[in-house]
Amino acid sequence: MAVSTMSITHLPATSQPGSSRFNVVHAIQQAIHDHPQANNRAARLAESLSHLLHLHIEPPSSSSHANNNENFNSDLLISDYEQKHSTPPMSPKEDISQNWREIQGLSSNWEGLLDPLHPWLRREIVKYGEFAQATYDAFDFDGFSAYCGSCRYNKHKLFDKMGLAQHGYKVTKYIYAMSHIELPNWLERSHVADTWSRDSNWMGYVAISDDEETRRIGRRDILVAWRGTVAPCEWYEDFQRRLDPIGQKEAKVEHGFLSIYTSKSDTTRYNKTSASEQVMKEVTKLVKFYKEKGEEVSLTITGHSLGGALALLNAYEAASTIPDLPVSVISFGAPRVGNFAFKDELDQLGVKTLRVVVKQDLVPRMPGLVFNEALQVFDEITGTLEWVYTHVGAELKLDVHSSPYLKKGINLIGFHSLETYLHLVDGCLSSKVPFRVEARRDVALVNKACNMVVDELRVPHCWYQLANKGLVCNEHGRWVKPKREPDDVPSPTREAHAHAHAHDHIDNEMQTYNVNVIRPLCTT
Amino acid sequence: MAVSTMSITHLPATSQPGSSRFNVVHAIQQAIHDHPQANNRAARLAESLSHLLHLHIEPPSSSSHANNNENFNSDLLISDYEQKHSTPPMSPKEDISQNWREIQGLSSNWEGLLDPLHPWLRREIVKYGEFAQATYDAFDFDGFSAYCGSCRYNKHKLFDKMGLAQHGYKVTKYIYAMSHIELPNWLERSHVADTWSRDSNWMGYVAISDDEETRRIGRRDILVAWRGTVAPCEWYEDFQRRLDPIGQKEAKVEHGFLSIYTSKSDTTRYNKTSASEQVMKEVTKLVKFYKEKGEEVSLTITGHSLGGALALLNAYEAASTIPDLPVSVISFGAPRVGNFAFKDELDQLGVKTLRVVVKQDLVPRMPGLVFNEALQVFDEITGTLEWVYTHVGAELKLDVHSSPYLKKGINLIGFHSLETYLHLVDGCLSSKVPFRVEARRDVALVNKACNMVVDELRVPHCWYQLANKGLVCNEHGRWVKPKREPDDVPSPTREAHAHAHAHDHIDNEMQTYNVNVIRPLCTT
Repeated sequence: MAVSTMSITHLPATSQPGSSRFNVVHAIQQAIHDHPQANNRAARLAESLSHLLHLHIEPPSSSSHANNNENFNSDLLISDYEQKHSTPPMSPKEDISQNWREIQGLSSNWEGLLDPLHPWLRREIVKYGEFAQATYDAFDFDGFSAYCGSCRYNKHKLFDKMGLAQHGYKVTKYIYAMSHIELPNWLERSHVADTWSRDSNWMGYVAISDDEETRRIGRRDILVAWRGTVAPCEWYEDFQRRLDPIGQKEAKVEHGFLSIYTSKSDTTRYNKTSASEQVMKEVTKLVKFYKEKGEEVSLTITGHSLGGALALLNAYEAASTIPDLPVSVISFGAPRVGNFAFKDELDQLGVKTLRVVVKQDLVPRMPGLVFNEALQVFDEITGTLEWVYTHVGAELKLDVHSSPYLKKGINLIGFHSLETYLHLVDGCLSSKVPFRVEARRDVALVNKACNMVVDELRVPHCWYQLANKGLVCNEHGRWVKPKREPDDVPSPTREAHAHAHAHDHIDNEMQTYNVNVIRPLCTT
Repeated sequence: MAVSTMSITHLPATSQPGSSRFNVVHAIQQAIHDHPQANNRAARLAESLSHLLHLHIEPPSSSSHANNNENFNSDLLISDYEQKHSTPPMSPKEDISQNWREIQGLSSNWEGLLDPLHPWLRREIVKYGEFAQATYDAFDFDGFSAYCGSCRYNKHKLFDKMGLAQHGYKVTKYIYAMSHIELPNWLERSHVADTWSRDSNWMGYVAISDDEETRRIGRRDILVAWRGTVAPCEWYEDFQRRLDPIGQKEAKVEHGFLSIYTSKSDTTRYNKTSASEQVMKEVTKLVKFYKEKGEEVSLTITGHSLGGALALLNAYEAASTIPDLPVSVISFGAPRVGNFAFKDELDQLGVKTLRVVVKQDLVPRMPGLVFNEALQVFDEITGTLEWVYTHVGAELKLDVHSSPYLKKGINLIGFHSLETYLHLVDGCLSSKVPFRVEARRDVALVNKACNMVVDELRVPHCWYQLANKGLVCNEHGRWVKPKREPDDVPSPTREAHAHAHAHDHIDNEMQTYNVNVIRPLCTT
């Protein structure tokens, strides 16, 4: 394979002045975008700094909402947005039971469905994206919490708490991965001593479609959702820039991703088995259970950012080890993961990957992005050979400029945010047509963790936050952090126990809905 | 008066590199301190920037809680803090009815009460400080709110919402001041068009002690609390550096403070009268009302930062215009306000001022602080003559290093924060003795808007925040900003109306408690 045929340019990220400068611009920009509240201190800081550093930073202002719709009218936009406040944020669900193979990319690799974007596919992409979003929204980021790095809710509550119950899935298992010392900034670690785990992070979950959803989508869908990282700038510089072999052939994947997926240690509470082993054991069990019932079964793996990379590794393993299982990956803003041989093997295994990519997002261009094209000459080709990564599957390309609801200034965090992705999918008609006016998803969600919505709509920036950061005033008038509900405190023994009895639950449900007598699975 | 006799050094603040650099250090430090949550993005930004700018910034870490108590033990501190969680944050109230003149500074200008700090005085200082704190906590800072710059609650609810009902006062009037175009950064302004007011800010309130508190403190206390600014770095650079005359003699005060206190405009809704006129009309009315009942009446004016400056102007005016009224000012972290003649006149008028000052706080050294002593030669004496400000009254000096609960690294916002002041007052025994172990005030309050509490206590930084910045999920599943309760929406007509009937309320209360028949006041 000749290097010259590849459309990938790459220079390793460095800590040279150029890339530092890049990060500073970015960080300043974020400071401007994220903290306009209270006294605008951050914005002033940013202004002073940009002045000091002789950088030109676009300030956030109402004039920054340039947009591509020529007939765009700010008042119309506001009134449309406010009118939608009293309508549900979702259209009625279609019955896709006859078309699910197409929608999962199994029959035609999504050919003809992406541009224009088929409305049934659009809805499924948003559904899977919202499952990935839940891995962020439920995650405990509080470094002062003894549960930092865990999910704030147990698996039975998760979808209710995240407002996702209407999607018709049930969580069957949580996945934990080791928070690596060799990757200091990728995963979260509590600052406190007596933490639930010093070694592991909640990294996602396995869920299964319920009977009603199963009827609508034409098969029993096993879902795996992988958590990514919130701020990609935290980890892209940490790429180990090392490709490790996966499988038995030539396929290689990025060392850091593989390490998160496969690491385990007997001294940990949650990673005596690796994320890979946890997820594969659960998926294998569910496949066996439903296939033995004669049901059609699919596996859909989703994830954003780092989570999209893990989804691909997971898909590779599932397709390699479980025969006759249709495997689809719906990833959002995922970086490249492996080499050409990895892509070829995925194709041979029949893994279908739909990569949803925002044109302005830098993360899908990593590893391999030339950070400082203007500042640095190309490395010798020989120096870059080791760094050859390629994307796999089909791509759904989105454009921030298509939405009249979004600011157009450079905002790397905003461009990469999963909620921005979901907003753009929801509004996507085709590459030629602007944002669809019938889009019903709540625009306010975009600003949960960034500042992308035009100021006219008055959606606060980074608004997804706990009241008083979780402190409550106790009966004595003191502000304290309440203890977690006991059943939301991570516990490997309780989770293993609950899991051992999960089949009884599945049985009961099946009996309720299907009036079938089901042979219990042997626990392995 | 010879310049050489003054103990004040001053150089005008400039926008030279030195002072810019100072601001950058400060702002970076704040970024480090304020935003450790989520992904530490701000801290990394700060680190990169400090590196770029070759600054040495102390990072926030558990090792930064150096302290002066030699026998300090971290475990003891934590266990003491956690044990206090199940105790009330206040000691029982003393009857000070026989000593109130001393405690108000009227008989001896607080001589002999400050070092060691008299426990009864300590309690009163905290009470007034909490009244000043309410002006921040209830203020709507949300630039996307149509009510930005107003109080979030109406005057009847304020103390209940702020947890101050037990202090035994009732708000009788809100004070508004113009948000000046000439002082662009001092006051808050909404970004939205249809705001409650484009010209005015809620600037404080007048309150009156109820009968029970009046019995405990030995007189009917009229309280005026002035709001300051949250981030002094926002306004110290904006000092107009101009002394304007006040009164009929030589007294002069800083132009900006006086302008906020006295500005009015017929085209505004809330400042057809100035803050000065509003507060003086109310205080005059209350004094008349209670004096006619034969009660002893005092006026106590409090404020933090800019609010402390306004308190002094207010005290000057009240003592000048209302005969035989004991006037005391309890200010926190207030800047200098006027010249020597202003101080002399205040002394002659009998205004008693207790300035509570944290040694490490820069604001009390303004105007007049040499920002960049190491970088800049002194101006010509002739050039500084115009800038001669002096402090008035007695000083209670506090030291951040006295508290084992506080971090000791440089934190300009934290040093100036009113909650830091109140914590230090609560723990203050004397200048020679460390923090008193019996101090009961909730330490967590210190971190409401800064990062000063040692990490061991796990109090989140800047934790005083609304859930989801005030957005709520409506019945359709959309995130929207709910409308304010109608009676919390500022309305000059309703407030005027409510005020006109306030005397009926006072009457009713008096009848209930005192069984007196009271002659109605004529409304002026």
